[in-house]
Amino acid sequence: MPSDPQSASALGVWPYISHTGAFKDGSDSPRAFLERCLQAIETHEGDVGAFVTLNIEGARAAADASTARWQSGSILSPIDGMPVGIKDIMETADMATEQGSPLFVGWQGKRDCAAVAALRRAGAVVLGKAVTTEFAASHPSTTRNPWDHTRTPGGSSNGSAAAVGIDMVPAALGSQVIGSIIRPSSFCGCVGFKPSVGGINRSGSFDHFSQSCTGVLGATLADTWTVARTISFRVGGDPGYPGLSGPIELPLSRVPRRIALLQTAGWPEASETAKQALSEARHRLEVAGIDVVDRTSHDATAAVETAIAGARELSMSINAWEGHWPLNTYAVDMDRNGLSASAQSRLAEAQTMTQEQYQGLLIERQRIREVYATLSADVDACMTLAATGAAPVAARMDWQSDFHRPDLATWDI
Amino acid sequence: MPSDPQSASALGVWPYISHTGAFKDGSDSPRAFLERCLQAIETHEGDVGAFVTLNIEGARAAADASTARWQSGSILSPIDGMPVGIKDIMETADMATEQGSPLFVGWQGKRDCAAVAALRRAGAVVLGKAVTTEFAASHPSTTRNPWDHTRTPGGSSNGSAAAVGIDMVPAALGSQVIGSIIRPSSFCGCVGFKPSVGGINRSGSFDHFSQSCTGVLGATLADTWTVARTISFRVGGDPGYPGLSGPIELPLSRVPRRIALLQTAGWPEASETAKQALSEARHRLEVAGIDVVDRTSHDATAAVETAIAGARELSMSINAWEGHWPLNTYAVDMDRNGLSASAQSRLAEAQTMTQEQYQGLLIERQRIREVYATLSADVDACMTLAATGAAPVAARMDWQSDFHRPDLATWDI
Repeated sequence: MPSDPQSASALGVWPYISHTGAFKDGSDSPRAFLERCLQAIETHEGDVGAFVTLNIEGARAAADASTARWQSGSILSPIDGMPVGIKDIMETADMATEQGSPLFVGWQGKRDCAAVAALRRAGAVVLGKAVTTEFAASHPSTTRNPWDHTRTPGGSSNGSAAAVGIDMVPAALGSQVIGSIIRPSSFCGCVGFKPSVGGINRSGSFDHFSQSCTGVLGATLADTWTVARTISFRVGGDPGYPGLSGPIELPLSRVPRRIALLQTAGWPEASETAKQALSEARHRLEVAGIDVVDRTSHDATAAVETAIAGARELSMSINAWEGHWPLNTYAVDMDRNGLSASAQSRLAEAQTMTQEQYQGLLIERQRIREVYATLSADVDACMTLAATGAAPVAARMDWQSDFHRPDLATWDI
Repeated sequence: MPSDPQSASALGVWPYISHTGAFKDGSDSPRAFLERCLQAIETHEGDVGAFVTLNIEGARAAADASTARWQSGSILSPIDGMPVGIKDIMETADMATEQGSPLFVGWQGKRDCAAVAALRRAGAVVLGKAVTTEFAASHPSTTRNPWDHTRTPGGSSNGSAAAVGIDMVPAALGSQVIGSIIRPSSFCGCVGFKPSVGGINRSGSFDHFSQSCTGVLGATLADTWTVARTISFRVGGDPGYPGLSGPIELPLSRVPRRIALLQTAGWPEASETAKQALSEARHRLEVAGIDVVDRTSHDATAAVETAIAGARELSMSINAWEGHWPLNTYAVDMDRNGLSASAQSRLAEAQTMTQEQYQGLLIERQRIREVYATLSADVDACMTLAATGAAPVAARMDWQSDFHRPDLATWDI
């Protein structure tokens, strides 16, 4: 749910519009669609800064090839011809992967990561690399919120959220350990889909966190789902995981029986507007005959809220240990001064941690997951705020800034 | 167990000798030890071909620094000063990582993989990159068995096994999905330790298989264990796994109560000599008062043998799907002709597979693991042949060869 209803309504009716739908009857074409995206980029990119790199020539060639496939009835997938952005921690054979770090400016691997390879095989038009915070962690980037340039787009998938929010692309890949898809999607006004851990193959992404997951930020629910499912259909989930399953195209909605409303650790800091929006959403669900339970009415919901009260700190500690490598080798083998203050701080924290402490954190995480499993068995879905309110105003926007980090109202374990 | 007792005995009494032990009283030094390794390399490397790259200058500097630490009593770990080889699928900041593929000749990342970073922090002397088969899979390399140059060293950790087997280094890192540590260790006459999946952090290794695991090939049990445990102590296991635990240095042995002797799918092809060696080992254990059970006397053992009868085919299919990426992007974005015939064949197999088939394979693997868990709860250890016999004679040794692939007598799920 967007914290700013204005940006949501700007996108029109969300759920079922597929941006490739008009390719079928020829009323739109991949090349024409791409040109509109490029126009949006020309209009907004100077203020927003959503992309690190664009491959316009490659995208035009891919769009033309897709246009020909739609004309000849030989499309590769329902998202054939869809322009997409790629978070700049994911390898692309035709563009550098800079990870939001000065240490990796211009660095280019030799291959597409698994998700990008799948997108290309599905005919999608890979348009550019979207800005990420440094190593997809907490140090902010220079991307601005497309709806108010004085505000943050949220992180760490900031370029992806800003680009989709302002119609530069209908979908982009992001990744999330704690709130890195859900929060910027909320701030920028797009759908944010963070699948269950392991849902989309992360191979070839600079992403080694056990809680992290590749996901999709999209202009509509249909775009978002189909992009995610098109990837898992071709390359599955993380190795060893079954991966995201289900129909390739968004199925018609069903009315759930019961939804748990969660008030997470960020609740006391949530704005009245945000709480009011959630309350209204709850009312609409109840009017539709859905049983909405919360901690006052449902023990399993209360148990989850208690269990995840410290989830942010737990997650940050898990991340610190898991991020020890590669930060340690960047500091030693490359240049410690090329790491942000926050990366240096995480590295310092990791250096005080032991494997035994980490093992204890994993046990605690598993305990929490089991509490959640009990709730999950009794409800069809959970709803909560994606952020404590509208995107915070940034104090400074330059790379070396250290502006207010938005509080995390979401949890992700 | 080495298939050739000669090579085992050449190493002296195995278990408790630590090759860094003599650094303590000054009767040996890391630099002197390194020079002996370099001498062994000079003597044998021309015939054996265990290494892709050596960083002799860097190793000498690291050995000198370690020598100073031993002299001043400020060592970083029990393996401070130990020269080690690194399988050439694992990233090293100071040397290229070529993956046994012409597509990656000269390719160099910017960092050490997690295990190498841990080894350096522990004071180990990283001497060189050991030859791997192409992408650590089945296409053979040019390394020769150090004990008989007409024979294969086994794969895929062939350089690591050959180098340790002939005393070029006392330990080397390898990796195993099916038999890639255990088998070459057996063929070359060294200890092969393949920890449980997730035991040693694989981050920064070109290794995306869900069954794969980083392990250690060592000259003695003490060297092997301490290298493995020294790594997990510093960087843990794969993200999300507790990682290898236990004392840093090899504890004194305890007499197990019960051992299950497994006759796996390779048993009918095993040589009489190999079977005889296993039979004698069983006899020695029984004389020591240990209960050795087998399929004729123990239902849980028989159940495991039945369950794993198709484990090789199952594992190969899981590998095919999981190896689809990155082979697909190498074929499209780089050069299909740079892939071996066997890699092209695996890619072709993967292209006929579906995510649903893969999901079915994971369910079957999980079922087998549960059968094994039942056995594991009832015995202290399993014993089996590491190979069907002595290393096969290779028909041709050049890169484009396609010589007889040793049958797999081990299983690894």
